[in-house]
Amino acid sequence: MQRILSTELARHTGATVTVAGWVHRRRLLKAVAFLIVRDAAGLTQVVVTEPEVRAQLEGLGEESVVELTGTVTANPAAPAGVELTAPVLRILNAVDVPLAFDLHRPALSASLPTQLDHAALSLRHPSRAGALRVAAAAAAGFRYALEQRRFVEIHTPKIVASASESSVRSGVVAGRSDGGSGANVFALDYFGRPAFLAQSPQFYKQLMVGVFERVYEVGPVFRAEPHDTARHLAQYTSLDAELGFIADHRDVMALLTEVVAGMTATVAERTGVAVPAVPAEIPALHFAEALRIAGAPADEPDLAPAHERALGEWALREHGSEFVFVTGYPMRKRPFYTHPQPSDPVWSNSFDLLFRGLELVTGGQRLHRYADYEAALATRGEPVAPYRGYLDGFRYGMPPHGGFAIGLERFVARLTGAANVREVTAFPRDLHRVTP
Amino acid sequence: MQRILSTELARHTGATVTVAGWVHRRRLLKAVAFLIVRDAAGLTQVVVTEPEVRAQLEGLGEESVVELTGTVTANPAAPAGVELTAPVLRILNAVDVPLAFDLHRPALSASLPTQLDHAALSLRHPSRAGALRVAAAAAAGFRYALEQRRFVEIHTPKIVASASESSVRSGVVAGRSDGGSGANVFALDYFGRPAFLAQSPQFYKQLMVGVFERVYEVGPVFRAEPHDTARHLAQYTSLDAELGFIADHRDVMALLTEVVAGMTATVAERTGVAVPAVPAEIPALHFAEALRIAGAPADEPDLAPAHERALGEWALREHGSEFVFVTGYPMRKRPFYTHPQPSDPVWSNSFDLLFRGLELVTGGQRLHRYADYEAALATRGEPVAPYRGYLDGFRYGMPPHGGFAIGLERFVARLTGAANVREVTAFPRDLHRVTP
Repeated sequence: MQRILSTELARHTGATVTVAGWVHRRRLLKAVAFLIVRDAAGLTQVVVTEPEVRAQLEGLGEESVVELTGTVTANPAAPAGVELTAPVLRILNAVDVPLAFDLHRPALSASLPTQLDHAALSLRHPSRAGALRVAAAAAAGFRYALEQRRFVEIHTPKIVASASESSVRSGVVAGRSDGGSGANVFALDYFGRPAFLAQSPQFYKQLMVGVFERVYEVGPVFRAEPHDTARHLAQYTSLDAELGFIADHRDVMALLTEVVAGMTATVAERTGVAVPAVPAEIPALHFAEALRIAGAPADEPDLAPAHERALGEWALREHGSEFVFVTGYPMRKRPFYTHPQPSDPVWSNSFDLLFRGLELVTGGQRLHRYADYEAALATRGEPVAPYRGYLDGFRYGMPPHGGFAIGLERFVARLTGAANVREVTAFPRDLHRVTP
Repeated sequence: MQRILSTELARHTGATVTVAGWVHRRRLLKAVAFLIVRDAAGLTQVVVTEPEVRAQLEGLGEESVVELTGTVTANPAAPAGVELTAPVLRILNAVDVPLAFDLHRPALSASLPTQLDHAALSLRHPSRAGALRVAAAAAAGFRYALEQRRFVEIHTPKIVASASESSVRSGVVAGRSDGGSGANVFALDYFGRPAFLAQSPQFYKQLMVGVFERVYEVGPVFRAEPHDTARHLAQYTSLDAELGFIADHRDVMALLTEVVAGMTATVAERTGVAVPAVPAEIPALHFAEALRIAGAPADEPDLAPAHERALGEWALREHGSEFVFVTGYPMRKRPFYTHPQPSDPVWSNSFDLLFRGLELVTGGQRLHRYADYEAALATRGEPVAPYRGYLDGFRYGMPPHGGFAIGLERFVARLTGAANVREVTAFPRDLHRVTP
C-alpha cells in the first residue's frame, strides 16, 4: 500500500492507510499502548491494543524505523484530531542501542558538544531540523530573488594558487592580524604543489561580471579561524552576488534590500518562522555619523559590538527598522579592491548591513580599472604577483561593479535567535571539530 | 538615463535610449564607423558618423566598456532590425592592451589551454558563456524537480577527517587502483592535524535521510585525479540526491528519470539549446544482459567504453531512447555501502544511467542496517575505524534508502557536445592547472 504522510492522515478518516517513520515515543500503559511515529512532515499517534503488536512494540527502541497499516480514526484528543488504530506493524530497521539523549522532549537536554558528536541523531530534533529548513528556504529565496533580476548562477574554484588571493576578502584587510596574507587560510597538497582553500569567491564573481554582468553563487567558503567563538566556523555557506553597470554602492544596497526581503519572505512562506519586516528603504548612516550616534570617538577605525548594538537601537527607535546600513567605512579597514568614496577617498563606497544590532552582510563597490588595482596594492605596500591571475582579468574591460556576501549560517542564527551558529549548521567544522 | 538591454532596443524605435556593454567589434569605414556593443543579452549595432565620436572610437580597444545614448533607428539590415544612431559615447573603462584572441568570430580560434589561461576573456565568447548558462539552467532544473517532490536542500562538510571516508564514493571500490583508501584524495593541514577534501557528500546525504527523508545538495567535490583526460577535473559540481522509504533501486531510477526530464526541460526553456527526449520509462537492462547485448564476455566485471557505446546504440535502435539504465552491477565493483540484489547477492541494487552511450549518472540502493555495514566492511577486509563517524549514524535507525549523483560539468558537456569538460567549466582545476 502506498505510504501517506502524517499530515495527510486527517484526509483519510475511516480508511485503511500506511504510514512510516521513526519511533518517536512509546507509552506502554496497562490496557493500551501509544506509539508516536515521526516522519518528515510531523507526528502520528498510533493506538495499540492488539497483544501481538504490543509485544513487537515492547522490544522496539526509540528511533527504530517502522511502517504501520491501520485505520484512521477521529479522536479530538490526538495531535492532529486523528489517530491510527488496529495497526499492523512492520519493523523496517530496529534500533537496539540506547540513545545518547531523548528526541521527544520540547528541547534537547544534551549539551551542544554532545549534540554535535551525535549530529545524525540531534538533527532529527524539530528545533535543529527546523533551523536547517530555514536555511534551505533562505537559500531558495536568495536564488529566486536574483534569478528574477537576471543573475546567472556560477560555480567557482574552491582551490586557489596563492594564500594572499584566498585571504583577501570583504571586511578583511591584508596585513591585519586576523586576515592578512596567508592568515586564516587552509593549505593543501595539490598534486605535490602548495595550494589553498578559497576564503571567498570574491575574485571569481568579479571576473564573471565581465561575462554575465550579474552573477551569484551559493557555496562553501573556508576560513582557518583560530578563534573558538559562537559565530565562527571553518566552513560556512556563502551567498554571494555581484553586479555590473552600477553607479555606486547604493545600487548594491538597493539590490541587497530586495534580496533580504525575498529571503525572509521565502522563510516565512515555507517554514512559518516569524521574520522581521524589511523596509523598502533601509535607513542608512555614513560611518562618521554612525560613530557619533554610537557615542564613539570620531577617530575610531571600526565599529565595536557595542556600537553596532547602539546603531540597532537607533534604527528601531528613529525608523522602526530592525535593519540599518552603515556606509563609507574607512578605506584602511577595507580590502584593497574596495572603491574609495569619490568625494573623500579616506572613506569607501562600502557598507555593512546590521540586523538587530549585529553585522549581517558586507558589501560595496569594487575598483574596476586595472591601473586602480595596481595603485591600490602599491599604496598598501603589497606585491602584485600573488594576485596576477586575478588582476589580469581586469585588463579586459570591467564595468563599474559591486556586490555583497551573506553568511547563511549567521543569517539563520540571527533569524531563529540561536546563540551559536553551530546550532543551525548540520555538521559544523571548527578549530576542534572535523567529525562527524 | 536608465540603461536598456540590447534585446529591448526594438521596442524603443524612434526613441532616445542608453545602452551599455563591451566593444565587441569596430569597423571603421571611410564615411561611417560601425560599433558592435555586446551586453549580457546580445549585440547592438551603433552607427557613427559624427567626427568626434569616431575619434573616440578610433583609440578604443576591443572589450572596452562603453555607454551610448542615441536614437533607435529601424534598419532591416541590422542584427535585430534596429540600430543606434547619432550616439553620444561615454567610455566607462578603456582597454589598452591587445587581446590574446578575438571574441567576435563565431568560434574561438585559440587552443583550449590558451582559452583557459585567459578565462576572464574566453568565457565572454558566446559559445563558452552559453555552456555556463546551460549549467545554471541544469542546476536550477535539478533543484526545482526535487523541491517539487519535498526534497530539502542541505550543505555538508567539504573537509573530512579520514581519507577512506572521503574516497569511498559511488562507483569507486575501496582498494581499486584509481580510488582506494586514501587514493585520489587531497590532504589538508587542518589546524595542525591532517584532514581531507570530500570526494562526495555521500555519507552526509545518507545521514540526512534520517532527518528529512529526502535531501539534495549542489556543491563542489574534490578528486585528486592523476589522469589528464578530457572528462576528469580535480573539482566539479556534484548534483546529489538521496531519499528514504524506497522499495529498492527502481524507486531511485524513477526519481532520476523525472529529475533528468526536469533538467533538460529547464535547459530548453531557458537557453533554447536542443535537448534529448527523456522517455517516461527509460529502458533498463540488467548488467548480465547488458554484457550479452554489448558482445562482452559473461565474466566481465565492468562495462568498457565500447560496451557503453553498443548499449547506447541498442537503446536507440530498440526503444528510440538516447538514455538507457544498466542495473545490477557486480557487488565487487561497487562501494561497500551498496545494497546487494536480494535474489542473488553477487549482483547489486545499483545502476548507471547511460546517455548517448556514455555513463552520466551512478546510483543505487544503499545498505541501511548498521550490522550490514559492519559485515560489508569485514567481507572486504576493511577496518571499521575510519568510517566510525559515518557508521555510528546508522545505529539510530535509517530507513531503506538510495540516491544518485550527477556530475554537472559532464552533463553539460554531453548535452552541448563539448569534447572536453574544461570547455564547460568556468575556471577548471586539474593535474596541471590551479590558476586563474
